[in-house]
Amino acid sequence: MSDLNQRPLILVTNDDGITAPGIRHLVESVADLGDVVVVAPDSHQSGMGHAITISNILKMSSHDFHMAGVQSYKTSGTPVDCVKLAIYKILKRKPDVLLSGINHGSNSSINVIYSGTMSAAVEGALEGIPSVGFSLCDFAEDADFRASRDVVRSLTKQVIVHGTPKGTCLNVNIPRAAPEDIRGMRVCRQAAGHWADAFEERQAPGGRTYYWMTGSFTDIDRGEDTDEWALRNNYVSVVPVQYDLTAHHAMAELNQWNLDVDP
Amino acid sequence: MSDLNQRPLILVTNDDGITAPGIRHLVESVADLGDVVVVAPDSHQSGMGHAITISNILKMSSHDFHMAGVQSYKTSGTPVDCVKLAIYKILKRKPDVLLSGINHGSNSSINVIYSGTMSAAVEGALEGIPSVGFSLCDFAEDADFRASRDVVRSLTKQVIVHGTPKGTCLNVNIPRAAPEDIRGMRVCRQAAGHWADAFEERQAPGGRTYYWMTGSFTDIDRGEDTDEWALRNNYVSVVPVQYDLTAHHAMAELNQWNLDVDP
Repeated sequence: MSDLNQRPLILVTNDDGITAPGIRHLVESVADLGDVVVVAPDSHQSGMGHAITISNILKMSSHDFHMAGVQSYKTSGTPVDCVKLAIYKILKRKPDVLLSGINHGSNSSINVIYSGTMSAAVEGALEGIPSVGFSLCDFAEDADFRASRDVVRSLTKQVIVHGTPKGTCLNVNIPRAAPEDIRGMRVCRQAAGHWADAFEERQAPGGRTYYWMTGSFTDIDRGEDTDEWALRNNYVSVVPVQYDLTAHHAMAELNQWNLDVDP
Repeated sequence: MSDLNQRPLILVTNDDGITAPGIRHLVESVADLGDVVVVAPDSHQSGMGHAITISNILKMSSHDFHMAGVQSYKTSGTPVDCVKLAIYKILKRKPDVLLSGINHGSNSSINVIYSGTMSAAVEGALEGIPSVGFSLCDFAEDADFRASRDVVRSLTKQVIVHGTPKGTCLNVNIPRAAPEDIRGMRVCRQAAGHWADAFEERQAPGGRTYYWMTGSFTDIDRGEDTDEWALRNNYVSVVPVQYDLTAHHAMAELNQWNLDVDP
């Protein structure tokens, strides 16, 4: 994909914030594969989905990532803002690869839709950049990223060679397991899953009620070709994700409706 | 879809906030078609995409919509938060229909992915509720909503009868035109479009630089079956939107890669 005469330009972002261990592991895994520029949120931006900052200002400053050759910026924006700032403000040329993560926690199944990590990758794909979001199925700050680093490195090499299928980015989830227990990577589809939400009520010191969203996830999909199945069986799941949201197969059904506009 | 012995329960939300003219027009258009409950953000939440509030608290209070029979709540959350609060905290039973909007401004083409209005509809679809997002291609506070009201009413009646195609919600965009100039509704696909972003630099009183995101949209799609084409030709566009983001057609290509995990 990239010009053979120059090292690939690798843009890195995440949604856990620039100081999260996951993004450091990501950068360390690929630092020798190209020139790395990090543009990431200055704070936690999990669950931000494809949010962009259009009704407020954005702040940005350079950041010391303490790694030789790695240029780094932090912003007050969402992960998607970071990608836009990188492409339209910071970088002199279009990146050859965009890597987002490594997220602390799974973005498999329907979680892809809420994920800031994956929305950054989708935004990269929209810009025609081969883009991958990586997530480790472990929320812990001190999670074991050894297997993740091998996965990131192996897959990034493939993306540098092949690009990504047209109109897609990749959603890569890594099971919580030691490197020797990982059984390989599998191309999967997004499992049908559902969050049953709940809202915990609390009282503020003044007496007013407020809420914390909690919830529990259920995989309702019995297929063995899904990301959830792969992760349960210690495979890395690789799902191609598209930004054309049209349900093309549903158009014929809608064309049978009465679509007159009656006053 | 709904039990014939009771009036349909219609959940209404938006992303422009509960005081926006668009949501009032929406409620007024459908108030006699069922029991309406409004759960909407207490402030502007445009561009929030599928963001949810997981790292912060949510506030919620009842709101007087000044319309007989309409129950109403405002929340500090995003449009998707509002849908979750409605379903899992406020309502006694699952709504029969979810309507989001009427958004002040278009959500056609790729804008669907950034849109809080449409993410609320997608969240409804995830919950198995027939859901529609309505947007008027006019940002003005005092936009002419006459045609929109006819569209909302006609389409909501169809959705009460038919539901929506499995796994989808509807993205309905309404051209900026007088009712007599609207040529009808058309089932469309999402046009391929692109935002070229720019960041305007300003100086804060203390001297620090900050940025405002701006940008210009280009429709790069020559098809006549797209939402952009329909809107340019004074048709209402109806696009079925899905939440399975898997690019199924790309899986075979990825299966030709070397997917070994090398240490």
